[in-house]
Amino acid sequence: MSMATERDDLAADMAVLAANARRAAKSLAAATSEAKNAALAAMARHIRAASGRIASANQRDVALATSQQRTKAHIDRLTLNPERIEAMARGLEDIAGLPDPVGAVMANWTRPNGLEISRVRVPIGVIGIIYESRPNVTADAGALCMKSGNAAILRGGSDSFQSSSLIVECLKAGLCEAGLDEDCIQMVPTSDRRAVGMMLEGLSGAIDLIVPRGGKSLVGRVQAEARIPVFAHLEGICHVYVDAAADLAMARAIVVNSKLRRTGICGAAETLLVDRAGKERLLEPLIAALIEAGCEVRGDAEACAADHGVKPASEEDWHSEYLEAIIAVRVVDGVGEAIEHIARYGSQHTDSIVTGDAAVARRFLDEVDSAIVLHNASTQFADGGEFGFGAEIGIATGKLHARGPVGLEQLTTFKYQVRGSGQVRP
Amino acid sequence: MSMATERDDLAADMAVLAANARRAAKSLAAATSEAKNAALAAMARHIRAASGRIASANQRDVALATSQQRTKAHIDRLTLNPERIEAMARGLEDIAGLPDPVGAVMANWTRPNGLEISRVRVPIGVIGIIYESRPNVTADAGALCMKSGNAAILRGGSDSFQSSSLIVECLKAGLCEAGLDEDCIQMVPTSDRRAVGMMLEGLSGAIDLIVPRGGKSLVGRVQAEARIPVFAHLEGICHVYVDAAADLAMARAIVVNSKLRRTGICGAAETLLVDRAGKERLLEPLIAALIEAGCEVRGDAEACAADHGVKPASEEDWHSEYLEAIIAVRVVDGVGEAIEHIARYGSQHTDSIVTGDAAVARRFLDEVDSAIVLHNASTQFADGGEFGFGAEIGIATGKLHARGPVGLEQLTTFKYQVRGSGQVRP
Repeated sequence: MSMATERDDLAADMAVLAANARRAAKSLAAATSEAKNAALAAMARHIRAASGRIASANQRDVALATSQQRTKAHIDRLTLNPERIEAMARGLEDIAGLPDPVGAVMANWTRPNGLEISRVRVPIGVIGIIYESRPNVTADAGALCMKSGNAAILRGGSDSFQSSSLIVECLKAGLCEAGLDEDCIQMVPTSDRRAVGMMLEGLSGAIDLIVPRGGKSLVGRVQAEARIPVFAHLEGICHVYVDAAADLAMARAIVVNSKLRRTGICGAAETLLVDRAGKERLLEPLIAALIEAGCEVRGDAEACAADHGVKPASEEDWHSEYLEAIIAVRVVDGVGEAIEHIARYGSQHTDSIVTGDAAVARRFLDEVDSAIVLHNASTQFADGGEFGFGAEIGIATGKLHARGPVGLEQLTTFKYQVRGSGQVRP
Repeated sequence: MSMATERDDLAADMAVLAANARRAAKSLAAATSEAKNAALAAMARHIRAASGRIASANQRDVALATSQQRTKAHIDRLTLNPERIEAMARGLEDIAGLPDPVGAVMANWTRPNGLEISRVRVPIGVIGIIYESRPNVTADAGALCMKSGNAAILRGGSDSFQSSSLIVECLKAGLCEAGLDEDCIQMVPTSDRRAVGMMLEGLSGAIDLIVPRGGKSLVGRVQAEARIPVFAHLEGICHVYVDAAADLAMARAIVVNSKLRRTGICGAAETLLVDRAGKERLLEPLIAALIEAGCEVRGDAEACAADHGVKPASEEDWHSEYLEAIIAVRVVDGVGEAIEHIARYGSQHTDSIVTGDAAVARRFLDEVDSAIVLHNASTQFADGGEFGFGAEIGIATGKLHARGPVGLEQLTTFKYQVRGSGQVRP
C-alpha cells in the first residue's frame, strides 16, 4: 500500500471517529445524572468481571515492553496487578458519587425589562486525551469526560494498547447497559503516530480540547503543536519560601513534606528560598532536616557555608524540576526577592510561604502569579482531591478557563439561557 | 536598509513593547480600584481637552483614506466628530463606574484538615487587541483591559494611525496622572503588517490573549493564525424559530426586531424558521410584516408559495450572515428540525424561540448549542450592556473561558489562595 493511501485510510478512520464523537456528545449532553452514574457503576462491574482478561492482556503488553528494553519505571507504570484493577473499578464508582456539574445554574438575574438571564453549566463537547503508558488513565479520563457530559477520544501509548483496548470494551459495555451511546468513549484504533498530529489539529473542528497526560516530552509536544486549547502543566517547579517570621518547627515540617512526601509528583517542591533576615535561625536546621531525611541539597554560597553536606548549585538548578530527592536552596532578601525569584524561575504551578507575619503572607499570596499559592501549608496539597474536587484529570498552569486542579467543573463550559415574555430591543 | 535588518528592527521594537507590557501588567495587577478609576477619569479629561487636536489628526486620517478610495462605510467608521469624541470620553467614565472584578472572592471553603481555600479573581496579564479603522476602539479596549488589571498592546488599522496615536497619548497621560505605569496601554508604533503576525505568535509568551475587533476577514485571519487564545466571533448567523404554539403578535414583533432594529450587528437575525404545524396561521403574516418593514425575504418553496414577494433561497442563503435587510425563511418540522437546522448552519452565537409551550422552549434552550439562547425575546439582546455587564470588548463564540458577551469579568482569570496553620500532607 502506498504512503498516500495509508494516510488517506487513517484520515478516513479519524473522520469516522470524529463524527461518532460529535453525535455521541450531543446525546450525552442531554443524558440524566442517573444514566451517567448507572453507566459508571456498570463500567466498574465490567472491569471487575474482566479482571483476569485485563491482567492477561496487560501481561502481553508488559512482555512486549520488556523485550523492547523499556525502563523499570516505565514497566511499573504500564503494569496492572489485581489491586490496580480493583482501584480502577473503585475510581469509577468514586466518580459516580461526585455531583454532576451539567445543568447547574451558576448565576441568574432579572433585567429591568423583565428578561431572566441564567448562566447554566453545559459540557464542552469532545475532549481528546493523549497519554502514555498508564492503562488506568483509560478508565479514569474516559469516566471524568463522560460524567461531565463530554465525549472522549482516547489515544494511549502503543505500549498499553492491549490493556487499554480491553478497558475501553468494559467502559463501552457500561455505557450500553445504561442506554447511552457507546461512542461517548472511543479509542483511536491505531498506534500510527500521525493520529496524534490529527488530534492536535482538532480533527477539523471535532475536538474542542486536548488534555495530555504524561511526561514532559509528551506535554511539551502537545503544547507546541496543538492548534486547539490544551489543559496541562509542562512542569511543576514549586517553591517554599521560609520568611524570617516563620516558626522553625512548622517550616521544617512543611519543607520536608513539600519536598519528600512524594518526590515524583508535580506539586513536590524543587526549590527552598530562605529569608536572609532569618538565616541564622532557620537555614542550617532546614538543610540538616532535609539531609537527614535523605535529600540531596544543592545551594548558593550561603547555603553551602551553612552545611558541609550542601553541593554548589548552578544556574540550571533554579530551573530544574528534579522529581527526585534533590532540592535547590537559596538565601533571598525577604519576600520581595522571593517573589522575583519565583517569577523568574517558577512554572506558575504551586508555591508556598511559611511565615507568622500576616502582611508578608498576603503580599506573597497576592503577588506570586501561580495557579495555587499557599500560606503555612505544604505544596503537596496541589491536588484536586485535596481541594475537595474529587477526581481530577490533571493540573493546568495555563490561565484561561481552567487553572490549578482540573476536575469535573473545569471540564464544562456554560451558556446563557434568556427567558422573556415578548421583549424586543428599543 | 535590507529586509533582514528591517525585520530585526521590528522584532527588537516588539520585544521592548512586550517587556514593557509584562512589567506594567505586574504593577497594574496590584493597583487599587481607586487608582484605576482615577486614571479613567483623567483619561476622559485628557480626551476632552485634546478634542480639537484629535479631530484634526482624524481629518488627516480621513483625507488619506479618501484619497485611497476607501468605501463610504469605511470612512464613516474612521471618522471622529465632536459627538463621537465626547462619547469616547463618556465611555471611559462609564468603565470607571463599573465594579472592579480584580480581587473578588469567587468561592471559598474550608477543608476537613483546616485549610482555607479561596478562588480569587486576578487579571489575565497582557491582552493584544487587533482592530481596524474605528479609532474609538483604542480608548474602549485600552480602558476595559486596564480596568480589569491587564496591560493592553493595541494594534489598530494603519488608516486610523494618527487619530489613535493621539488617543493613546491621552490614555497614557491619564495613567501617569493616577500614578500608574503608562505602559499599561501601549500602541504598536508601526503599521508594518508583520507586527500582527508577531502578536498572533504571542510575542514569545508575552501576550496571553488576543481580541480581534473588526470584520470577518480580520477575525478569520486572527483565528486561523493565532497560536495563543482568542476571544472572538467570526460571524453571527442568528435564528428565530417560531413554533406552532407562538402568539402571532409576539412572534411578529420579535422577528421584525431581531432582523431589522439594527441589521449590521452580530446579534441581528439572519434566518427565520417557521414550524410547519403553525404554517397556515403564522407564515404569511410574518413574511408580510418583514416585507412591509422593508426587508428582502428569500425563502424555501413553502415560503415562496406563501407570498409572491419572496425570492427563492439557495443553499448559500442558510449559511449567510447578511448584515443587511435580507432574511432567509424556511419551514421546518417542529422544534427538532429547527434545532438540527441551527446545528448545521448556525454559528453558535445567538438563537431565539418564540412559543407559548414551556416544554418546547426548554428543549430549545437546552439543545441549541449557542452562547446565548432566548425564549420569547429578540436576538438583538445579545449584548454585554443588555446583560448588565456594562461595556463589553466583544462577543465570543468559542467555548472556553469566555462565551457570549465579554465584559470585565471575562477579562480576568483566578488563582487559588490556600491558608493553613502548618498543614502537611499525610
